[in-house]
Amino acid sequence: MTEMTLEQARTALMALQKKMAAYEHAIGLLQYDGATTAPKETADNRAVTLSVLSEEIYCLGTSEETVALLAFLDAHKDALNEKEQRMVYLMYKDIRDMQKIPMAEYVAYQELLVKADDVWHRAKEASDFELFRPILEEIFATTKRFALYIEPDKDPYDHQLGEFEEGLNKETLDAFFAKLRGKLVPLLQQIAAKEQVDDSIRFGRFPIDKQEELSYYLMQLMGLDLGHVGLSTTEHPFTTSLGSHRDERITTHYFEKDFVSSMYSVIHEGGHALYDTGSADDLAYTVLDGGTSMSIHESQSRFYENIIGRSRAYCRLVFPKLQELFPEELAGRTAEELYRAVNKAAPSLIRTEADEVTYCLHVMIRYELEKRVFAGELAVKDLPTEWNRLYKAYLGVDVPDDKHGVLQDSHWSGGMIGYFPSYALGSAYGAQFLSKMKETVAVDACIEAGDFAPINDWNREHIWQYGRLYTPAQILERVLGEPFDADYYIDYLTEKCRDIYHL
Amino acid sequence: MTEMTLEQARTALMALQKKMAAYEHAIGLLQYDGATTAPKETADNRAVTLSVLSEEIYCLGTSEETVALLAFLDAHKDALNEKEQRMVYLMYKDIRDMQKIPMAEYVAYQELLVKADDVWHRAKEASDFELFRPILEEIFATTKRFALYIEPDKDPYDHQLGEFEEGLNKETLDAFFAKLRGKLVPLLQQIAAKEQVDDSIRFGRFPIDKQEELSYYLMQLMGLDLGHVGLSTTEHPFTTSLGSHRDERITTHYFEKDFVSSMYSVIHEGGHALYDTGSADDLAYTVLDGGTSMSIHESQSRFYENIIGRSRAYCRLVFPKLQELFPEELAGRTAEELYRAVNKAAPSLIRTEADEVTYCLHVMIRYELEKRVFAGELAVKDLPTEWNRLYKAYLGVDVPDDKHGVLQDSHWSGGMIGYFPSYALGSAYGAQFLSKMKETVAVDACIEAGDFAPINDWNREHIWQYGRLYTPAQILERVLGEPFDADYYIDYLTEKCRDIYHL
Repeated sequence: MTEMTLEQARTALMALQKKMAAYEHAIGLLQYDGATTAPKETADNRAVTLSVLSEEIYCLGTSEETVALLAFLDAHKDALNEKEQRMVYLMYKDIRDMQKIPMAEYVAYQELLVKADDVWHRAKEASDFELFRPILEEIFATTKRFALYIEPDKDPYDHQLGEFEEGLNKETLDAFFAKLRGKLVPLLQQIAAKEQVDDSIRFGRFPIDKQEELSYYLMQLMGLDLGHVGLSTTEHPFTTSLGSHRDERITTHYFEKDFVSSMYSVIHEGGHALYDTGSADDLAYTVLDGGTSMSIHESQSRFYENIIGRSRAYCRLVFPKLQELFPEELAGRTAEELYRAVNKAAPSLIRTEADEVTYCLHVMIRYELEKRVFAGELAVKDLPTEWNRLYKAYLGVDVPDDKHGVLQDSHWSGGMIGYFPSYALGSAYGAQFLSKMKETVAVDACIEAGDFAPINDWNREHIWQYGRLYTPAQILERVLGEPFDADYYIDYLTEKCRDIYHL
Repeated sequence: MTEMTLEQARTALMALQKKMAAYEHAIGLLQYDGATTAPKETADNRAVTLSVLSEEIYCLGTSEETVALLAFLDAHKDALNEKEQRMVYLMYKDIRDMQKIPMAEYVAYQELLVKADDVWHRAKEASDFELFRPILEEIFATTKRFALYIEPDKDPYDHQLGEFEEGLNKETLDAFFAKLRGKLVPLLQQIAAKEQVDDSIRFGRFPIDKQEELSYYLMQLMGLDLGHVGLSTTEHPFTTSLGSHRDERITTHYFEKDFVSSMYSVIHEGGHALYDTGSADDLAYTVLDGGTSMSIHESQSRFYENIIGRSRAYCRLVFPKLQELFPEELAGRTAEELYRAVNKAAPSLIRTEADEVTYCLHVMIRYELEKRVFAGELAVKDLPTEWNRLYKAYLGVDVPDDKHGVLQDSHWSGGMIGYFPSYALGSAYGAQFLSKMKETVAVDACIEAGDFAPINDWNREHIWQYGRLYTPAQILERVLGEPFDADYYIDYLTEKCRDIYHL
């Protein structure tokens, strides 16, 4: 290795990333298969394969050769270009983190997650938290143990938050959520005193095949390239990037009685897919392909879902198509009724179906619970009770069972502890992006005309093309030219509620 | 390695097989994804990943450590049990074969096959052989080159036949096909002189969702465990085993105008799946899991499809379900009409939809063409012309376009040259198995009662449980206790035709 030239090292760096991307492609596809197509009792077989491949990628990532390569490049970083510097930084950090986790524990954890996904599905179906509890305890314990392996001197939940958003911590989030809560709770109270929105337009009988047709229409409308973005159905909608160059899969879940649920899932996941497939071509097969953080990712998904998708202009745009697909159910209905229905603000049970105003309260509950479990102030076995208590306290709703409560999200079964706050932060980023975008793009006019090119071009130019080249903080700074400010989001929500509820 | 104990080597052998099964799981899933769910323009991304993983498995399989391990075990084979001996034999042979192929060529070929699948799909859709020709030339040339790398002194097409059926060669097949042709052509002539079967029962409008319901009914009926066997749709039906322990995927292709096509695809692929998932548990995660050869595999798939599925008893069994699913189309129809329709013997264009009598002629044409291309007597560019000429000569039909001619099968695009004869051989094996099975199982009574357990148990006991432990020849010898004899098949077909056509 001492005899390696810089040029050789650069070439080796690209080859290594290509190889790691291939393993991640295989692992991602195995997981996607498990969630979509695989027969129900094949999880054990998949777990064996995932454990082998995880071990392989662990060995590759932490091999002497890899470490020497990255150390060499790190020592010569001044001779690297900006992209190479960032690749080396991210990979070297990952490897140093990974080296702190004993391989056997890492592999066992990957295997555990495969089983967890399967057990969570069954537990949710049966609304049986006890079935999921032992594995969830292990996931929380392992995540915390790994956090302490990697950053022994840092609060493990802060570490966990930083995994999804470089630099994020409880202090920032406590302040952010306190501000939101301070403004949104009074707003909700004002709304509660007004006449409630009639959202009956969304309910009826909407055949699945017609909803599927709607999905593809919405995907094309928002500018997704269907040659590179696929759609499947799963219990819980998600987006996954396979490989490292434009092979994106989104999923949705259809409810025959309510077309709005899947409709906004598709737009949400479609926003993720736009971001992921928007990386510049020269980032393909490198660690820079994809999105820089979960909050920036959610800023895009929730931007398309809410800021665009729940705007009056968008409801007007898609309403004729909806009437064409569901002629009987939507006969005599109007785009304005749809607009009001999809913006109905009312406390509810399910996060993914929550309106924009209450959404952050759902997130806040999860944040509080995770924080307390990590701090040792709450046992996993008490999560259902606490979940239900907080839903009553924050949202005023009674949780009827764990299926509609603590078992509703897939994140914990996937080990994604510390992810939830990204949704709230991303929503808030999106509102500030909108304000900036409006300086040069006639956003409402574009939506009403169904011309998403100027909007997508703006996002591509400012955010998507860079992949992981910049940190979330750098992206915010570059896009906004001013500090992040949650007031944009609060103002956006307040204005919308004023309009709909005549506050 | 010299210090390795036999016990350590045995453990290492199992670990190696588990690792190789994991890579094959990933590779198989990537290919399956490409054929089923992947967005259309993602083949290049998948090709990159497959090329990396193929290189990894190549390196693993041919590493000094692996070779030393197998050489050590081979040197101590008398101390191994029967299963371990067979594992070592198969793996050592694979590795010695693989070592003869330069790694760069092996990897490039894997990458070529991914692209070939995509190009073949497009070419077939457009009925454009020229689009597929360059890649097909490369596949034929590479396959032949590899055959000569591995067995330089053997005729390369004989090598290719042996890849799918240990010990098979042109001499055997020439005799087998000559015998079949000598009996089947006169039989077809007799049939042509009789009143033709009315098969109008199969045509009409059969909604895809009802056909899908039928698929699951048929799968369950034949004893497939739906927890371990999944169903998808593809251009061309196939079966694939993922990983090494009961994760099986079959595919079908629905035609709204004809329910019989998919119905028999499902039973055929289901037969493969029964065999693959029937390996004894202690073969899991070893190279012995699965089927021993393509002919034995086809003996099972075509046994369920034809010998069972096209029997009078089976038509009677499933007819009430068919009427329930397609009440309007099948009103006033009878099981006997179905039986006659699915056994209509008539020259046609598409192999997968051919009746039992003409089927072997379709296979024979492909065999002749492959043999001549390998012998340098026929250029790939002339395949369409020769294909069409032989269809006219053997079957008397005019091929209207390449979509319904030379582009109809996926095998060549998958590099499976030398595979086709397995279908004919397997069909013939199946008839001889039936005769043996009838000595202890009341086959027709079981079918009519819908009780497949005695039939499946017989196949499991005699064939499935052994996986790849025995060679095809050993399986035949063990099951039959007499040499293979194509007359069983000819007698079976003749008897059926006598019944249907009153010969």
